[in-house]
Amino acid sequence: MAIKKIIEDTKEALANDPAATRAAFTTDSDLVGLVQVDVTIGDHTVPVDEPSGLGGGGTAPNPVEYALASLGSCQAITYRVWADKLGIRLDRVRVRVDGDLDLQGFFGFDGSVRPGFHGVEVEVELEGPEDPAVYEELAEAVNDHCPVLDIFRNPVPVDSRVAVTTTVEPATEA
Amino acid sequence: MAIKKIIEDTKEALANDPAATRAAFTTDSDLVGLVQVDVTIGDHTVPVDEPSGLGGGGTAPNPVEYALASLGSCQAITYRVWADKLGIRLDRVRVRVDGDLDLQGFFGFDGSVRPGFHGVEVEVELEGPEDPAVYEELAEAVNDHCPVLDIFRNPVPVDSRVAVTTTVEPATEA
Repeated sequence: MAIKKIIEDTKEALANDPAATRAAFTTDSDLVGLVQVDVTIGDHTVPVDEPSGLGGGGTAPNPVEYALASLGSCQAITYRVWADKLGIRLDRVRVRVDGDLDLQGFFGFDGSVRPGFHGVEVEVELEGPEDPAVYEELAEAVNDHCPVLDIFRNPVPVDSRVAVTTTVEPATEA
Repeated sequence: MAIKKIIEDTKEALANDPAATRAAFTTDSDLVGLVQVDVTIGDHTVPVDEPSGLGGGGTAPNPVEYALASLGSCQAITYRVWADKLGIRLDRVRVRVDGDLDLQGFFGFDGSVRPGFHGVEVEVELEGPEDPAVYEELAEAVNDHCPVLDIFRNPVPVDSRVAVTTTVEPATEA
């Protein structure tokens, strides 16, 4: 079982080097159009766009859709990993994630409205031969260990820095 | 100025219909390989994979990388929208987002370690002709209104449901 082996190897590596389980991730976002962004992640480029109602061309998902995609895919993978860790057979995983927000927050029309999601619904569909109670226990383990669910549910410390390169304004035409 | 017009139109629509600024987003994630996920968002499909060290093929970013991409792209777009809203000229936006996590949380080796990011660094590079202090004010407005920064910094209520379809276990070979 491939994942069980990975978990065992990781645990063994950790015994030899306590820093072995620290992982760092980097992304570079470049605003390439009015509201189009190319995000570079290692060898991959992820396109981001807004729908026409927000000034974009609808050529790619927008940032909050990627946030939900991140949560849904993290749930699916965490189900796989924890099922294998706990020895639970799991034949299929599908995860629908819905999120609601109020654009008054983003546009600053109402300072009492948060810009991010007011609520998120996660609907998980599992298929497998075990007793349903076994999958309920699995769900509890998954929700305790899913990295992106933790990011949604709990505050993440974010440090922010801004560097400005001042450009010379071209002469305006008379 | 296209974005200013969108903001004005949205404000006008809101005056006529207070529910006009509510936006709902949906994503469907399907575990299609050991740790590979296809996420469907409207007409778009987003591929997700893990690196080989976590049982994947490294064919696409993983969920926590998408979470960082979501934050970086949201910052970039919010800089564009708020610069236009505030009448600040902004010629270029780049955003690097780094995140650190400890896999002990994900694998459940240490219950005191959170599975999500311990810390995130956002480095914004701006180019434009205005006084640097103007961009500092812009940064403050952006960080107050960026949807995905809000999702990272503050708790989001997440409801989770699981439906199980019980399959018949095939006879094991003797």
